[in-house]
Amino acid sequence: MIRLTEGREPTATRLERYRDAALNVLLSAIPAQEPRRYLYDLIPNYPLRAGKGLRPGLCIATCLAFGGDMESAVNSAAAIEMLHNAFLVHDDISDESVLRRGSPTMHTEHGLGLAVNVGDAMNVMALGLLKRNVRPIGTRLTWQVLGEVEHMLRESVEGQAQELGWVRDNVCDVTEGDYVRMTLKKTCWYTCIHPCRIGALIATGGGMDLDRFNRFGCYLGAAFQIQDDLLNIGGDIQKYGKESLGDLYEGKRTLVLIHLLNTCTSEEGERLRCFLAKHRAGHTEAEVRWVYERMVHYDCIGYARRSSQQLAGAAMCEFQVAFGDRPDSPDKDLIRDIILYMVEREL
Amino acid sequence: MIRLTEGREPTATRLERYRDAALNVLLSAIPAQEPRRYLYDLIPNYPLRAGKGLRPGLCIATCLAFGGDMESAVNSAAAIEMLHNAFLVHDDISDESVLRRGSPTMHTEHGLGLAVNVGDAMNVMALGLLKRNVRPIGTRLTWQVLGEVEHMLRESVEGQAQELGWVRDNVCDVTEGDYVRMTLKKTCWYTCIHPCRIGALIATGGGMDLDRFNRFGCYLGAAFQIQDDLLNIGGDIQKYGKESLGDLYEGKRTLVLIHLLNTCTSEEGERLRCFLAKHRAGHTEAEVRWVYERMVHYDCIGYARRSSQQLAGAAMCEFQVAFGDRPDSPDKDLIRDIILYMVEREL
Repeated sequence: MIRLTEGREPTATRLERYRDAALNVLLSAIPAQEPRRYLYDLIPNYPLRAGKGLRPGLCIATCLAFGGDMESAVNSAAAIEMLHNAFLVHDDISDESVLRRGSPTMHTEHGLGLAVNVGDAMNVMALGLLKRNVRPIGTRLTWQVLGEVEHMLRESVEGQAQELGWVRDNVCDVTEGDYVRMTLKKTCWYTCIHPCRIGALIATGGGMDLDRFNRFGCYLGAAFQIQDDLLNIGGDIQKYGKESLGDLYEGKRTLVLIHLLNTCTSEEGERLRCFLAKHRAGHTEAEVRWVYERMVHYDCIGYARRSSQQLAGAAMCEFQVAFGDRPDSPDKDLIRDIILYMVEREL
Repeated sequence: MIRLTEGREPTATRLERYRDAALNVLLSAIPAQEPRRYLYDLIPNYPLRAGKGLRPGLCIATCLAFGGDMESAVNSAAAIEMLHNAFLVHDDISDESVLRRGSPTMHTEHGLGLAVNVGDAMNVMALGLLKRNVRPIGTRLTWQVLGEVEHMLRESVEGQAQELGWVRDNVCDVTEGDYVRMTLKKTCWYTCIHPCRIGALIATGGGMDLDRFNRFGCYLGAAFQIQDDLLNIGGDIQKYGKESLGDLYEGKRTLVLIHLLNTCTSEEGERLRCFLAKHRAGHTEAEVRWVYERMVHYDCIGYARRSSQQLAGAAMCEFQVAFGDRPDSPDKDLIRDIILYMVEREL
């Protein structure tokens, strides 16, 4: 899945190493004190469920590709990973999801109230991690990283609001452009753009224009999100770990669904809008199956897969803009390999 | 309710002035952009529901009492108020509350997902407000304020975890000491201690030991919380704006309930534990009424009221420690008056 680069540390091993470094720092930020079972014991729960560590990987690898070192980047990488997991805990509540990476979601296992609070606490822990930056990178850069993180969070809550609003109000005329703009906000900034920006910011001490990563991260993040939606529809629950077809139950406005709304007959469209108007608990398996079959019938899944691949291709071009002037290195290779991973992954 | 001080701006008017100044800064931090109705239009919702503005009032008045000015304190006061409201939005979700200050709670009106996200967004806006501090008070002090806020949030999530955990696991042997420790964490730090600490930090440029406010704020916050619990039990919904007896439906471990558990007969204790074991939706009005009558019978309400008054008395003593070396001023008067307000308020 991740390409191997001959004669060097394999990309997958390197990515794991960065993920583990960030994870160790993340875990070290959790106080060993009360309240344990209602709070601090729950915080490692999501971070420890095996993810690839793409966000800390992109952050650390970008820092190293631009001449920085691991120690300078690892607190920020850990903070991004913590914020990501805080977001997942709250997102699962909002989506009423039952499974996350193959295990019960936080609110399913520990109740709504504690889960809301665990997400909030993880945001506080992330702030603590960002404050740790002062020693390795100094106050000025720490401050600039905080500014990047603030923007990252702002975009994420805006994207989340848009996506949840579409579902709540059963908006059925969402265009592909709307979808891409929402995905840019909800996914791209925090999954791709800011990890790269922050890594390069730290490496260069603020001496470069960080906007060079925006288009790269936008294409990469959109490819990632579409692939994520495809895995939810076609993925193997054993591998993917979420409820199969969970997005259909939720009525989530994915590219696959939008394409179906745009290509089906008007009778099918009417039936689909009625389906989407119902709360997830009201959907029968047969109804969900019907939607899935229409998606297969109109090749919506193939369409989304091709879109994801095109976006990955565009990301590959933009990789040259973002990283082309850097000397070849295992970290540059790692980032290039992540582009391929985004559209080939099964997890 | 709030005492008038002759020949000067009445305390209540001054408090309103500080609240309004903080509220205006808070509102100015909300971007005038999309997504509006799913996010930014919702953020002013809670802050605009009339509160007394105790937290910004304490912050600004302490800053002025220690020789600072309004402009230096108002961003921090606004950030504290924003964080407070973010906490209320999430707290209402956790408690499944239906009313807040007389109107439907955020999740009741706008759905769970958008409400979770609005709370998260308000935390991001608060970070933006704290970053604005750089211009009026400089980077070093801004950084120190951020450290205070981090501690404030950490204590709040710990207290919240403890309180929610007791309800979820139906813990019935909570002692008064446990209650006070939980309240210190959940309420006192962010309602009283940190507003004072941050105000004085800004006024003195970091030149004083901020721990002098800890005991004062602890007593004051505990008096406030007990009074809050009493208003929920005995308050007039028209004035108080929450569901009457909502805390009983929730099974919230208030001092009133703890005192009842400690004083009732063993048969009553058994019945009470069964009551508390049920989810709030399973409680009949008659059951809640029985609990309330037992509270009246054992004078639990009077006991809690006396405790609140004793704590306010202790806060009055500690006021001398915290503010005694400051010259008399309308702001010192304001803070003293707030102590009385805490136990006399009906709102």
